[in-house]
Amino acid sequence: MGQFDLHILGCGSALPTRHHLPSAQVLVVRGKSFMIDCGEGTQLQFRSTRINFNKILDIFISHLHGDHCFGLIGLISTMGMLGRHAPLTIHSMADLEPLLKPQLDYFCKGLPYEVRFQPFDPTKNELIYSDRSLNVYTIPLKHRIQAAGFLFKERENERHILKDMIEFYHIPLKEIPSIKAGNDYLTADGELIPNSRLTVEPTPAKSYAYCSDTAYTESIVPIIKGVDLLYHEATFSDEEMDRAVATCHSTATQAGRIARAANVKKLVIGHFSARYVDEKLLLKEAKARFDKVELANEGNYFEI
Amino acid sequence: MGQFDLHILGCGSALPTRHHLPSAQVLVVRGKSFMIDCGEGTQLQFRSTRINFNKILDIFISHLHGDHCFGLIGLISTMGMLGRHAPLTIHSMADLEPLLKPQLDYFCKGLPYEVRFQPFDPTKNELIYSDRSLNVYTIPLKHRIQAAGFLFKERENERHILKDMIEFYHIPLKEIPSIKAGNDYLTADGELIPNSRLTVEPTPAKSYAYCSDTAYTESIVPIIKGVDLLYHEATFSDEEMDRAVATCHSTATQAGRIARAANVKKLVIGHFSARYVDEKLLLKEAKARFDKVELANEGNYFEI
Repeated sequence: MGQFDLHILGCGSALPTRHHLPSAQVLVVRGKSFMIDCGEGTQLQFRSTRINFNKILDIFISHLHGDHCFGLIGLISTMGMLGRHAPLTIHSMADLEPLLKPQLDYFCKGLPYEVRFQPFDPTKNELIYSDRSLNVYTIPLKHRIQAAGFLFKERENERHILKDMIEFYHIPLKEIPSIKAGNDYLTADGELIPNSRLTVEPTPAKSYAYCSDTAYTESIVPIIKGVDLLYHEATFSDEEMDRAVATCHSTATQAGRIARAANVKKLVIGHFSARYVDEKLLLKEAKARFDKVELANEGNYFEI
Repeated sequence: MGQFDLHILGCGSALPTRHHLPSAQVLVVRGKSFMIDCGEGTQLQFRSTRINFNKILDIFISHLHGDHCFGLIGLISTMGMLGRHAPLTIHSMADLEPLLKPQLDYFCKGLPYEVRFQPFDPTKNELIYSDRSLNVYTIPLKHRIQAAGFLFKERENERHILKDMIEFYHIPLKEIPSIKAGNDYLTADGELIPNSRLTVEPTPAKSYAYCSDTAYTESIVPIIKGVDLLYHEATFSDEEMDRAVATCHSTATQAGRIARAANVKKLVIGHFSARYVDEKLLLKEAKARFDKVELANEGNYFEI
């Protein structure tokens, strides 16, 4: 656990039910935690997970509907009470800052850390976060208001050194980074050792795409092509197609079609309408299009 | 149920725990529902109670700390999605409207009902709500910021008619209201029938006082004298007296002292600090001062 894990904190849609909370997730990448959406009750949900919520580095908000961001103010406030010092960056539309700032100034006076607002353009597929091991890109979605999904992509890993070969050729330590990067090695005797004899393929870089809320749109397929895990909203079943179109949401069948077209390794569906007591029907419909699918549920986590 | 019942939706303090949610209550008086405070998660809690939350008439917010009001925006938004039409009045400090209004305008566009802000002066003990059966008064509290509790007081009930006596004297229907109001009755023969022969004492008017958040303050005693039920915060145990003083909260012992001094019929303590895994110690300390005490808990309700 902790290499590339997705934790579901909430996977319901706007109307709260006894079964689901509004949207919120945490992606843990090599020990660093990133939050995706933050519906009301997110800070309460943290208490029943194993995630330390002061370890959250950045928060990514897909769009400014209440069920995706009403939990921010409570979470920010509580992080302060728990003594957070590290700055917290919130990536979202530019509108968020003027909406949240007056409440932060009033309710969170003397917050012991800085809240930074980092606006992005949801109409573009761009890099919005980058560190040593991870890049995060926006995915333009099609919703009633501007919305963007997020593609979390590990950076390419280094090749794995074959220790016995390094010893055999008496290769000094300082040469290792160059060899890990894929370069050949020239011995003191002038012999060129091809990299392929010194290393093996790196662990494949992992990737996760979050696509919610969105109507069916094939424009996302090239962006999420081949990801290890796709979370795609599936608010409705086929019977509610009219409603899905009217509200710019997707059906489970459509989520399955996107997963198939993008040839992802696994699909998780969520953002379920309050009308479903359980989501067996949604699972069945998605499965008819794409076999490797699971239902999201509060408390679930997926190792990628 | 429904004559004068208190439902506890949340009775924790600011830090959320696995056991408690932040402050929120619903008082149901003769079928009308009133909300008192509205911490984050209140709308989610409604789903596990028997209360229809579109039946909430007015909301009373004691003070503008996040754990008492962060649930408002989500609740208001959801009430709209569920098709509320009746106006909703929120009684609170004047600061609330400018803090909430921009979010309402942005997130709740096209809300099918009106949200009215009704500011009160928390430094005064005044009538802030009144209908045919109920009066609500503010109770000035002592906290780090301005705060007011609320006294819910049924209006005096009418005297109960003795049906057989009414029949015996052949009293016409139109005279009943006057007799219920306590007047004597003059027969056609000029005989004066004293009211005491026609009626018995009315059902006593019920009362409920909500006092949270507050440091120990005897100034509330005359206001809450003899109430049927007192909810008084008991954030800390005696061991944490220093912390109680520093943060302007009460200990359980102090809550018990207030209940005893005010000679209330029953005390419920709440607003428990996150440090207590259960609140047995708090119950014990309060009980040492006032015997008729219970712990609040999410899902509890108290018939008054």
